[in-house]
Amino acid sequence: MNALDSLIEALKRLPGVGQKSAQRMAYHLLQHDRPAVHRLADALTAAVERIHHCERCHTFSETSLCSVCADATRDARLLCVVETPADQAALERTGSYRGYYFVLLGRLSPLDGVSTRQIGAAELLQRAAESGVEEVILATSFTAEGEATAHVLAEALRARGVRSTRLARGVPVGSELEFVDLGTIAHALSDRR
Amino acid sequence: MNALDSLIEALKRLPGVGQKSAQRMAYHLLQHDRPAVHRLADALTAAVERIHHCERCHTFSETSLCSVCADATRDARLLCVVETPADQAALERTGSYRGYYFVLLGRLSPLDGVSTRQIGAAELLQRAAESGVEEVILATSFTAEGEATAHVLAEALRARGVRSTRLARGVPVGSELEFVDLGTIAHALSDRR
Repeated sequence: MNALDSLIEALKRLPGVGQKSAQRMAYHLLQHDRPAVHRLADALTAAVERIHHCERCHTFSETSLCSVCADATRDARLLCVVETPADQAALERTGSYRGYYFVLLGRLSPLDGVSTRQIGAAELLQRAAESGVEEVILATSFTAEGEATAHVLAEALRARGVRSTRLARGVPVGSELEFVDLGTIAHALSDRR
Repeated sequence: MNALDSLIEALKRLPGVGQKSAQRMAYHLLQHDRPAVHRLADALTAAVERIHHCERCHTFSETSLCSVCADATRDARLLCVVETPADQAALERTGSYRGYYFVLLGRLSPLDGVSTRQIGAAELLQRAAESGVEEVILATSFTAEGEATAHVLAEALRARGVRSTRLARGVPVGSELEFVDLGTIAHALSDRR
């Protein structure tokens, strides 16, 4: 394979990038932005070499403890369980959570071979059992797999006497009731406050 | 800047990739596809080192003459002028053109500082003047800038006694007349055959 085809094939491995987009990217880089090619190659190599997982919460981190876990001023009574580092980043950006995190790096999906072991359930239970943790917030997605994951973890936590909660389901801010799906409205109704 | 943010910034330089997509790409690569990171980094470096321009037609090539220009069996009477290597690749895939190419690597756009010099107009005129070339097919885009480019090149070729033609404008294959824009229908009507 020639260098151009190899580049197009490699770009196709990016999520959301098909043959056409990969071609367009390759042509654009080679024709208009050769400095960006070196920068991207270097950034990719640096990322894969330097970014590992926080040994405490499993999120991406360049140090053995991530900046959140290393921050002793946060609220040690709260532990929030999310599926991905991206979910964690979204929660952090809200600025309304001051506790710690635990990142599953996936969700239970028996058909894809993702079991409690892959999502680090044992480490989570151990982490939740540490003195000081009063509430585990299960912030997995509201999809079938996310719900199943939350259910399994909630059961396991309950068996160990740890209290767990789930994010509120309801009508998104800024949306008109008319256009919200019925399942969401039903939840917003039953969870009204 | 940490390695993750550097990677996201670098990915944003790809055409059609914004903050959200770049984040999703970075998280996906680091979480699910670390081998792809090395492959992409290597492909990028190899591409920028090995891919240059064909000295005859200016398309991307790893050799000083591209495979088309090096192919002596093609029809030397035809020279097709396109804006980009991607346009050339599209024409090649049709399998219905057997002549040679000249790739402008752009189109005239005075506001962006793209003049006849940047698109290699002098080299094109020299190439078109070679013995054997009977027709120059101007296959630039049917946009304002593409049309202007074709017009300027056609004038220059005419002044040198070289015959030039333009791709046919008309109704795209597979489309219903009702949904085709009026300018296209008008052209299809006046160019009817």
